[in-house]
Amino acid sequence: MEIRGAGKIARSAARGLKLVAGDDEIKSVEELIEKLKKASKILIDTRPTAVSLANSVRFVTGDLEELSENADLGEVREKIISRAEEFIEKSEKATEKIGQIGARRISDGDTIMTHCHSTNALSVIKTAHDQGKDIRVIATEARPRQQGLITIGELAKNDIPVTLIVDSAARFFMKEVDKVVVGADSIAANGAVVNKIGTSQIALIAHEARVLTFIAAESYKFHPSTLVGELVEIEERDAGEVVDPDRFPGVEVRNPAFDVTPAEYIDLIITERGIIPPEAAYELLQEHFELSSEGEIF
Amino acid sequence: MEIRGAGKIARSAARGLKLVAGDDEIKSVEELIEKLKKASKILIDTRPTAVSLANSVRFVTGDLEELSENADLGEVREKIISRAEEFIEKSEKATEKIGQIGARRISDGDTIMTHCHSTNALSVIKTAHDQGKDIRVIATEARPRQQGLITIGELAKNDIPVTLIVDSAARFFMKEVDKVVVGADSIAANGAVVNKIGTSQIALIAHEARVLTFIAAESYKFHPSTLVGELVEIEERDAGEVVDPDRFPGVEVRNPAFDVTPAEYIDLIITERGIIPPEAAYELLQEHFELSSEGEIF
Amino acid sequence: MEIRGAGKIARSAARGLKLVAGDDEIKSVEELIEKLKKASKILIDTRPTAVSLANSVRFVTGDLEELSENADLGEVREKIISRAEEFIEKSEKATEKIGQIGARRISDGDTIMTHCHSTNALSVIKTAHDQGKDIRVIATEARPRQQGLITIGELAKNDIPVTLIVDSAARFFMKEVDKVVVGADSIAANGAVVNKIGTSQIALIAHEARVLTFIAAESYKFHPSTLVGELVEIEERDAGEVVDPDRFPGVEVRNPAFDVTPAEYIDLIITERGIIPPEAAYELLQEHFELSSEGEIF
Amino acid sequence: MEIRGAGKIARSAARGLKLVAGDDEIKSVEELIEKLKKASKILIDTRPTAVSLANSVRFVTGDLEELSENADLGEVREKIISRAEEFIEKSEKATEKIGQIGARRISDGDTIMTHCHSTNALSVIKTAHDQGKDIRVIATEARPRQQGLITIGELAKNDIPVTLIVDSAARFFMKEVDKVVVGADSIAANGAVVNKIGTSQIALIAHEARVLTFIAAESYKFHPSTLVGELVEIEERDAGEVVDPDRFPGVEVRNPAFDVTPAEYIDLIITERGIIPPEAAYELLQEHFELSSEGEIF
Amino acid sequence: MEIRGAGKIARSAARGLKLVAGDDEIKSVEELIEKLKKASKILIDTRPTAVSLANSVRFVTGDLEELSENADLGEVREKIISRAEEFIEKSEKATEKIGQIGARRISDGDTIMTHCHSTNALSVIKTAHDQGKDIRVIATEARPRQQGLITIGELAKNDIPVTLIVDSAARFFMKEVDKVVVGADSIAANGAVVNKIGTSQIALIAHEARVLTFIAAESYKFHPSTLVGELVEIEERDAGEVVDPDRFPGVEVRNPAFDVTPAEYIDLIITERGIIPPEAAYELLQEHFELSSEGEIF
Amino acid sequence: MEIRGAGKIARSAARGLKLVAGDDEIKSVEELIEKLKKASKILIDTRPTAVSLANSVRFVTGDLEELSENADLGEVREKIISRAEEFIEKSEKATEKIGQIGARRISDGDTIMTHCHSTNALSVIKTAHDQGKDIRVIATEARPRQQGLITIGELAKNDIPVTLIVDSAARFFMKEVDKVVVGADSIAANGAVVNKIGTSQIALIAHEARVLTFIAAESYKFHPSTLVGELVEIEERDAGEVVDPDRFPGVEVRNPAFDVTPAEYIDLIITERGIIPPEAAYELLQEHFELSSEGEIF
Repeated sequence: MEIRGAGKIARSAARGLKLVAGDDEIKSVEELIEKLKKASKILIDTRPTAVSLANSVRFVTGDLEELSENADLGEVREKIISRAEEFIEKSEKATEKIGQIGARRISDGDTIMTHCHSTNALSVIKTAHDQGKDIRVIATEARPRQQGLITIGELAKNDIPVTLIVDSAARFFMKEVDKVVVGADSIAANGAVVNKIGTSQIALIAHEARVLTFIAAESYKFHPSTLVGELVEIEERDAGEVVDPDRFPGVEVRNPAFDVTPAEYIDLIITERGIIPPEAAYELLQEHFELSSEGEIF
Repeated sequence: MEIRGAGKIARSAARGLKLVAGDDEIKSVEELIEKLKKASKILIDTRPTAVSLANSVRFVTGDLEELSENADLGEVREKIISRAEEFIEKSEKATEKIGQIGARRISDGDTIMTHCHSTNALSVIKTAHDQGKDIRVIATEARPRQQGLITIGELAKNDIPVTLIVDSAARFFMKEVDKVVVGADSIAANGAVVNKIGTSQIALIAHEARVLTFIAAESYKFHPSTLVGELVEIEERDAGEVVDPDRFPGVEVRNPAFDVTPAEYIDLIITERGIIPPEAAYELLQEHFELSSEGEIF
Repeated sequence: MEIRGAGKIARSAARGLKLVAGDDEIKSVEELIEKLKKASKILIDTRPTAVSLANSVRFVTGDLEELSENADLGEVREKIISRAEEFIEKSEKATEKIGQIGARRISDGDTIMTHCHSTNALSVIKTAHDQGKDIRVIATEARPRQQGLITIGELAKNDIPVTLIVDSAARFFMKEVDKVVVGADSIAANGAVVNKIGTSQIALIAHEARVLTFIAAESYKFHPSTLVGELVEIEERDAGEVVDPDRFPGVEVRNPAFDVTPAEYIDLIITERGIIPPEAAYELLQEHFELSSEGEIF
Repeated sequence: MEIRGAGKIARSAARGLKLVAGDDEIKSVEELIEKLKKASKILIDTRPTAVSLANSVRFVTGDLEELSENADLGEVREKIISRAEEFIEKSEKATEKIGQIGARRISDGDTIMTHCHSTNALSVIKTAHDQGKDIRVIATEARPRQQGLITIGELAKNDIPVTLIVDSAARFFMKEVDKVVVGADSIAANGAVVNKIGTSQIALIAHEARVLTFIAAESYKFHPSTLVGELVEIEERDAGEVVDPDRFPGVEVRNPAFDVTPAEYIDLIITERGIIPPEAAYELLQEHFELSSEGEIF
Repeated sequence: MEIRGAGKIARSAARGLKLVAGDDEIKSVEELIEKLKKASKILIDTRPTAVSLANSVRFVTGDLEELSENADLGEVREKIISRAEEFIEKSEKATEKIGQIGARRISDGDTIMTHCHSTNALSVIKTAHDQGKDIRVIATEARPRQQGLITIGELAKNDIPVTLIVDSAARFFMKEVDKVVVGADSIAANGAVVNKIGTSQIALIAHEARVLTFIAAESYKFHPSTLVGELVEIEERDAGEVVDPDRFPGVEVRNPAFDVTPAEYIDLIITERGIIPPEAAYELLQEHFELSSEGEIF
Repeated sequence: MEIRGAGKIARSAARGLKLVAGDDEIKSVEELIEKLKKASKILIDTRPTAVSLANSVRFVTGDLEELSENADLGEVREKIISRAEEFIEKSEKATEKIGQIGARRISDGDTIMTHCHSTNALSVIKTAHDQGKDIRVIATEARPRQQGLITIGELAKNDIPVTLIVDSAARFFMKEVDKVVVGADSIAANGAVVNKIGTSQIALIAHEARVLTFIAAESYKFHPSTLVGELVEIEERDAGEVVDPDRFPGVEVRNPAFDVTPAEYIDLIITERGIIPPEAAYELLQEHFELSSEGEIF
């Protein structure tokens, strides 16, 4: 659930595939293909719900058969290595670009609500602040793990005025808010956004108050298998994060890590490739992942 | 903010006035009136935002001048004492009656969401359970003071199946919920309900999901001065309840104790006097408090 | 379920009580009270879900104890008989008055949608037509019993242009409609209306299209026990009305006779006592039924 | 109006064009083009409102001029024949694929409402059932022709629990429903769906209750000329299907066969090419039909 | 259409009736009743759409028959005179009281939008300003007669910061607005408010933006005959106010003076008798006008 | 702000670039590129907020570097000239095509509301009228500059029945309207439309009344830099257009020329390239402007 690490994990996977491609013990295209496939499978299996990892692997090796056709070993190696490097570079710059693009939508004087801790959302906020815009942040604590405390620490360190509230107080303060900016764990073909539990109710509250909600996320958070009907699975975490279960025998404790915000409550998705209205998620996925469509059920 | 004690406080005030009325050192109607007025003022001033206290005082001494007209000391004493006793008795039975009336609206098989800890809401739930209805409760923890833990303890003790969730998970679980039942701190003339912070967003989430929201509250929670435009003041509590402020220098921490749920998100108000649609709050106030209209600005 | 007969049934009950009151074998006030109570119970038990019958009984004998206090047998007889006659007379004139009041809200050129067959709704339509207003009706067939065919026959006989459609076509034709006018079986304290199955979806469709929905109903259709939390029970009728069950073994057939339209989809309730916004149902019930509050749980 | 036969009709057209292409009396490319154009016109004219037929013809002969350029007779024949075969094959497999994709969105324990009789909707339901999911169906009768009876027969034969209701009872039962699954006659560029009369009000009712509505339809149901502003025409069928007109002289009877469900009430369109959010209909049409854009007005 | 003069007109009527009552040429109760009835009719006929005038007459002479019963000429005179004086006094103080009550709902820092020119709305604004609240007004010009210019002049004279905009810019500026405060011409039993053309779209825009809309109006603006179904008639004024019709032959020019704002877009009605939620309009009318119910159709 | 001239301005820019390309004093590809870039910059700087001008320049010289690669001076000249001519021709025919496409969505008997003066909206209306459809127009005056008067003059000249109303009366008349048809100044990637002040509130009012809103605009009104987060700037015009500021010292007068209508209130965008649902604006921009993506920030 290390959302903040989604980018790191994705880049690690690309690095892994680059290593395989550079392995000079491999002697033929066939062997290289086999090894890359095996490595891809292993990488994906380590975190089956991490769409950014799967997308990283898909980016590097998605059309392996096709690119290997009529190519010699050196050429295939080179292509894979260059793809891996391209992914790593793009990923590293993505948060910065998201900050630049997103900051254009932040106005001087804005009060921004954020939830939990998102590197991309903070990049938007910090870039706007660095541009000299006078902004203020209201941050929720994000029970049970209170990652909001990381957010307020980081904002205070950057001298950005910040107010901490409990999650229940989101609607109370919404009348002071101009924009909600949060991150995403993954984004489905219908524009629905999976993010830290509580995001969907903040987006609903913002929608009720006609406050804009922006999602800041790299384009590899878009979830290709939702194109063919797969549902995004929601991880349930340990009850002990909420309360010590021994204190309350006979009481069930539920602790879902994420929830799903429907597209209608999202105004814009800020990616490193530009602004995406949630209704365009389908198109972005179509375009981005046609290479991998071979592996699908039809 | 001892909401659970709203009834107790109101009854204490009535008892206080009864004591004054019974004070045999008082020698004339005029003196009695003066002492009762003074006592009323002192009582109200101890907790100026507690509407149930003010309503208790109003019930007992609201039309003091009028009832003293052409009456001798004994008669006035008697009236005040009998009023105080009537208030105490009604108040004591109110929670039970709220349970009986509200339980009629709970169906076998219902899943009920509740927030924070409300004696009246629990009365509805427990009465329905006692009637043999197979019900289940989802309770939020209600940060920062986690009164939800009192609720789950009380429900578990009564063998009512209960699930604890964090406040952020309310929308995630709303699809399983049939009715939301919560208490109230006070109710305004336009049917808006002041209750524990987070109530208004749960009511919004329920409304989005077409889940009914019931408020369980004694009729003396209705707030008469809202008839003439007064706003209900929202108490802000100590920041230390949310987080140790010393850990986060430069960060503002806000901790409002209540929020306001608009009438459009409330389906029914369950009082000991029957079911009140929120739009009828004005009427109930008009009828209930005409005696005290003398003291108003016109 | 003879909705059209709701008025007749209510008047029959009043006549029955009048007969009892006039029974000259009764020799004392106590005996009269006992006989009337017994008769009331029998009448209500014949049709426990018919609120107009119960209200008729309540109108005539609701405050029996009170009115018998210090009265002799002749006086009680007279009061009961005069109450019964008053109810009968008011009830007989109610449909005509509903027509007069409701017709004021029908404009020249209006297209009116109606559902099932309602004497009161037709009274509004026919009165408007008699006033020379050029109106047109779209009538649904109202499966399973197709009472819409009675409606179209009656309208055609009155030379009112009428179009018959299947129930599924209500939304298709709503763009041509100016007002929906239907009857009611009973009306709850929160303004919700119980009427022939399908009414609630027509009201929803009208609401979507910003078409006004009017309920035409006598004031004795208001349901007093909803004031204390009772739910209106929905009768389920024989499956054979829908399809011959023998043709489809293993298939469940459900045939609820009524549904509930929430107050938010109703613009006005047209009664013989004037126009009632649905939010005022609570007030009308309070006012109308205070006499019977004695019999309630508190 | 044989919706169930939409696929069959489309395949028949492809077969017809294949026959023409294989006709060995044709002696030149020019003659072949002429004959194919003539055949295309005849086929489309047999059912001018059947978009799947027109799309079949377009698929096979849409870019006839272009593909004939610099090609000899044999090559053109071959291309047309292979296109026709491709269409037939894809069409035949489409319903099965729709079932596979759609079933991923059906959860264990779901209650599904369906309307009328749709092969594709049933494919989704039956596939989910075959996967061992415990599901239950509520089927409307679909007056006037009661095709719902075909649906309940087919479901009962497959041992899928099914409840039959009248069309007016859709809102009454919606609170028990998890998903609505229906077919489509055609789909416009703005995502609006033309389907059996009554579909749009069921989708509205589902939307009100926050129940998801899924459309199951082959991709050739998308209607290309809506891209340039054409409206989809709604067929009106014989009044005698509703009621014997002779019984009701002077009464107009209207019997539209279809209605239009706006995109905002549709959650997903399940096609054999994957899940399409209704907002993506425009894109799918753009992509799918660019070949035929030559024939348009600009 | 002199809305600003609604109070003056009503008081003039009361003065007229007082004069009649004081006329010492009248020699008997019968003659007095006859003269008062005649005067009432004449007064109402001068401005048949002015509800405040009719209500003034109703207040003074509404129950003439009843109050004359068993009274001598002097007593009747006295009652009528004292009623007329009471109305005049209450009316004169009403605007001030509306200001006091309404100002409680204006917060320090508020931006208020107003439309056209309303003495009562300005009373609320000026009272809040006099209390030292830092407020700002956005005023529309209110074409065609531009009464907004009177408003901005009056606010500027009182040193209240004010911004003038065209009527079309209301939605553009709504994001800066905290509350909309406008007057009323009349208020119907269902809470709908008739006011200067354009009010209903400003209320809609405010509702969209979750901005509160307050109506400031004397209680005699409530329209009793709407209780029995009468519609409030909308006056249409001279086309020349909009444009010189000679410049545009063949063009129809329409100039309705008022429009109707539905209750759902109104948050509160501020009267001299307190705050009335629009849903309580029915109750206020019921209570206020029961005396005149004699003259109604039933 | 000469919206009506948006097409003219765009064509002028294309002509300017054509002149530069044809300048025979230019002696090398490099010089041509430099001159064209300089001219492009000058053209754009004359009206930095006119997106149609910028798009015209982008169409002609957007991929200048790329097209110049390996090309000689003559070839580059020719390409630029032919691009400029293509733009001019397409632009000239666009309004006519918009009329043809849009008129398909106008039905016989429709009442159309339009706002301000838009050549494209009038093209739709006039084409529908020329097709013999019986239509009627309601036109707002569009304060402050009253361009509605141009619209009514033009419609009257074409014998199209037209009614003039003040801007405040839009909601009053909306119940008579079938479709709203207006133009656009520019269209953002999320489908939001920038048009004459007042458009957004008319679209909101239409949405409330379930009346369709159509935007008639050339495809070069779509705003590419909104893809990367740029906001469309709203021009504020001279206060003197609203009122003589000297008459009202101390009063601020605000006069924004445009407002933004969100995509949810727009049903269709009618372009010369076909019907675009607002959700497809992103796709159209992506497709149309990929050539210029080089110049973007990443």
